[in-house]
Amino acid sequence: MRHLLSAADLDRAGAVEVLDVAEEMAATQRREIKKLPTLRGRTVVNLFFEDSTRTRTSFEAAAKRLSADVINFSAKGSSVSKGESLKDTALTLEAMGADAVVVRHSASGAPHRLAHAGWTRGAVVNAGDGTHEHPTQALLDAYTLRRHLRASGEGLDGVRVTIVGDVLHSRVARSNVLLLHTLGARVTLVAPPTLLPVGVEAWPCQVTSDLDAALTLGEPDAVMMLRVQRERMEAAGGGFFPSAREYTRRYGLGRARLAALPDHTLVMHPGPMNRGLEISADAADSARSTIVEQVGNGVAVRMAVLYLLLAGERAETPGGAR
Amino acid sequence: MRHLLSAADLDRAGAVEVLDVAEEMAATQRREIKKLPTLRGRTVVNLFFEDSTRTRTSFEAAAKRLSADVINFSAKGSSVSKGESLKDTALTLEAMGADAVVVRHSASGAPHRLAHAGWTRGAVVNAGDGTHEHPTQALLDAYTLRRHLRASGEGLDGVRVTIVGDVLHSRVARSNVLLLHTLGARVTLVAPPTLLPVGVEAWPCQVTSDLDAALTLGEPDAVMMLRVQRERMEAAGGGFFPSAREYTRRYGLGRARLAALPDHTLVMHPGPMNRGLEISADAADSARSTIVEQVGNGVAVRMAVLYLLLAGERAETPGGAR
Amino acid sequence: MRHLLSAADLDRAGAVEVLDVAEEMAATQRREIKKLPTLRGRTVVNLFFEDSTRTRTSFEAAAKRLSADVINFSAKGSSVSKGESLKDTALTLEAMGADAVVVRHSASGAPHRLAHAGWTRGAVVNAGDGTHEHPTQALLDAYTLRRHLRASGEGLDGVRVTIVGDVLHSRVARSNVLLLHTLGARVTLVAPPTLLPVGVEAWPCQVTSDLDAALTLGEPDAVMMLRVQRERMEAAGGGFFPSAREYTRRYGLGRARLAALPDHTLVMHPGPMNRGLEISADAADSARSTIVEQVGNGVAVRMAVLYLLLAGERAETPGGAR
Repeated sequence: MRHLLSAADLDRAGAVEVLDVAEEMAATQRREIKKLPTLRGRTVVNLFFEDSTRTRTSFEAAAKRLSADVINFSAKGSSVSKGESLKDTALTLEAMGADAVVVRHSASGAPHRLAHAGWTRGAVVNAGDGTHEHPTQALLDAYTLRRHLRASGEGLDGVRVTIVGDVLHSRVARSNVLLLHTLGARVTLVAPPTLLPVGVEAWPCQVTSDLDAALTLGEPDAVMMLRVQRERMEAAGGGFFPSAREYTRRYGLGRARLAALPDHTLVMHPGPMNRGLEISADAADSARSTIVEQVGNGVAVRMAVLYLLLAGERAETPGGAR
Repeated sequence: MRHLLSAADLDRAGAVEVLDVAEEMAATQRREIKKLPTLRGRTVVNLFFEDSTRTRTSFEAAAKRLSADVINFSAKGSSVSKGESLKDTALTLEAMGADAVVVRHSASGAPHRLAHAGWTRGAVVNAGDGTHEHPTQALLDAYTLRRHLRASGEGLDGVRVTIVGDVLHSRVARSNVLLLHTLGARVTLVAPPTLLPVGVEAWPCQVTSDLDAALTLGEPDAVMMLRVQRERMEAAGGGFFPSAREYTRRYGLGRARLAALPDHTLVMHPGPMNRGLEISADAADSARSTIVEQVGNGVAVRMAVLYLLLAGERAETPGGAR
Repeated sequence: MRHLLSAADLDRAGAVEVLDVAEEMAATQRREIKKLPTLRGRTVVNLFFEDSTRTRTSFEAAAKRLSADVINFSAKGSSVSKGESLKDTALTLEAMGADAVVVRHSASGAPHRLAHAGWTRGAVVNAGDGTHEHPTQALLDAYTLRRHLRASGEGLDGVRVTIVGDVLHSRVARSNVLLLHTLGARVTLVAPPTLLPVGVEAWPCQVTSDLDAALTLGEPDAVMMLRVQRERMEAAGGGFFPSAREYTRRYGLGRARLAALPDHTLVMHPGPMNRGLEISADAADSARSTIVEQVGNGVAVRMAVLYLLLAGERAETPGGAR
């Protein structure tokens, strides 16, 4: 693995390896001293063209626990806003000795360009590009599912996952469909027709607009509620659904739908939540919710990704501090 | 000590302990290598919903000198601005493994909620909430007073402190009154009636609006000038005093009042100063001013607080690097 | 060396020493573990009153590779924006124990004031002040020239450098003219008369407005293209040249001028570039371009400067990690 740009970069064996290494990383995070010396002297740059304190912070925590130096390079107020190209920014970071560049960009494909235009020898990690992909989010979701439903070393064969909501604007949905399929899970997307992307029929999943049927007949092992991306919808001129109330009625996970779920079904959300819109407080805070656990798993998964990209070839085990 | 939310969290023994540990920390800061290994592998998150470079930087320096990893989580441009609740932000930081959360928030009581709603196991340190409290500021002021007027292991019994100015908007004043009283000092507040909070008569201090009487008759050991919080006053619609000039004339510490002070009286200010408004350059830069010293003491006191919250139970001495 | 405020602070021996130490630093940066323990426990503050992600990041990488703690103190949203003076900011950083302050400020002379007003014992490094100076940029340019044209321990005697463009607004040009002259190089400035500063005739260099003559008759060893500082020109009301197209035609380095250069001539630019304005993509990306190399050299040079300012007196060699 040279870069992590798309969930499709990982075949089954590669994806399972990330989950297995993440498990080892998570074990180190339950110790009093959480820090490993593995990436000492390496530099990880967080190159964020869009704000995302949650994702940036998660990568920063992951890199620091591996003893890397972290430099936050926000594009706000930088040369980028003076018109510098992605190319020149990339060349700059490369020349400064960045071993990995974690990039978030509003343009779908920007991380791919960064990785493959020959501008940098460092590893590129896609931390979310436009409406395209967010592969570490999919990995942390898969990790969360496996912890509850399968064992170390396994995939997610036969696991049924229902993803609900604004698929159109969701890089989380796209990355999850790809990765969950690779791992053997069966995915159903539930969305209003106006919030489905063109070409979704070619994705390796079922698609429906009837949430209640999907939840009761589908008997999902997990239901993943997507964030309603109001800011992206407004930027696009609105009109995606009649009203917030109507959205909640038809596509929200509230008390009634929560009660109707099979006993073992997990409730997931990538965060940040719009409580009361796509998910009710009952659902978010219920015993079956993995929402907080997902955040913690995100640090372990990102530690695994950075480890495999930057230290993997050295054939060390991550337990260097043991 | 699990959290530090209010100066009232500390009884006399607890407050004296913080000052004593801060003294040990200050001693380490006079060495060439200022760094202690005490909090290696621990993560301190600076969660700032309001900008405050000074306070954030002081906590950051304190945490880094104890070898903690520091993550700055500014609420600007974060999920918080997308409508995420304090609860979800707290759960996120907890899941990421924050051992301590240093929080500044415009809402009085936000740190208390963070600490007591069951969202986080980490220690919460109030770095200023609304017009409510700023306990580490009070601790550094008490530390400064003790260095000049009393000995290690002691309180501030009988020390006379006059606090002057915008008490209404000042979390510094409130925390100082509480802590100084706990330590045995006698506090007098001097403010225009429009800048006194409702209920001030129940605070454990004297209150007057006559600065000159307070300074000459009161013979204070220290006079603490408060910042005129123009931004808060403007937000509230103004009208708190007739003019800046009138404020300076009646409540400012200028050359004449400085000359009339007893020889031993210290001049304090929590910063940042409005030079020429509540304090003149003469007063700010005089030999009796402790204003710069207060800043340095702030790092030592915050090291002590983080040490006691995160490492105190391990019964180590801070001199781990000796 | 106590501070680095101006390229004129360095005599020939001092400048050569920085370049020589930078060479040692660069050698350490080609190792797998780039980190040196030299500044462990020291605190470097980046005090940026103007945004500059590139320069800030370069200093941050340099300081971290020397194991210093780095605190980014952006003046945006800080007490400074609440009216705190440079003096009080300086006193604050000093009291917090800053061993070095790297300062960028829109006012020419601000770093000089910071260093010489008695506010701080820490070393001050000018990272760009107004239209005045940017000495570490000049040092990295000189380092780049020497790597290609001269040997370790030498100056730049007889090296011909042509600097082209917006000299008026360029602190890079001023620092380069001073330093290159000190090192024995011969400098020619090429600019439209409207973009030359008053008093340029006293600078130790040639001045012309005819780029083609300078390039073909002058046979430069290096041509350094300056950034057209559109934001500064607009702030000044514009009118500096008729149009971007006209500027490019007369003062841009494009395909034709590139082809007409002597074979050995290097193409330099301090970045960020306006591709298509002062420099074409052909020129920027040509084999003779050192633009990316300059960025990497910037880290090595800044490591050398921080090392000499903070550890030089200890008479250690930088290879402490060897």
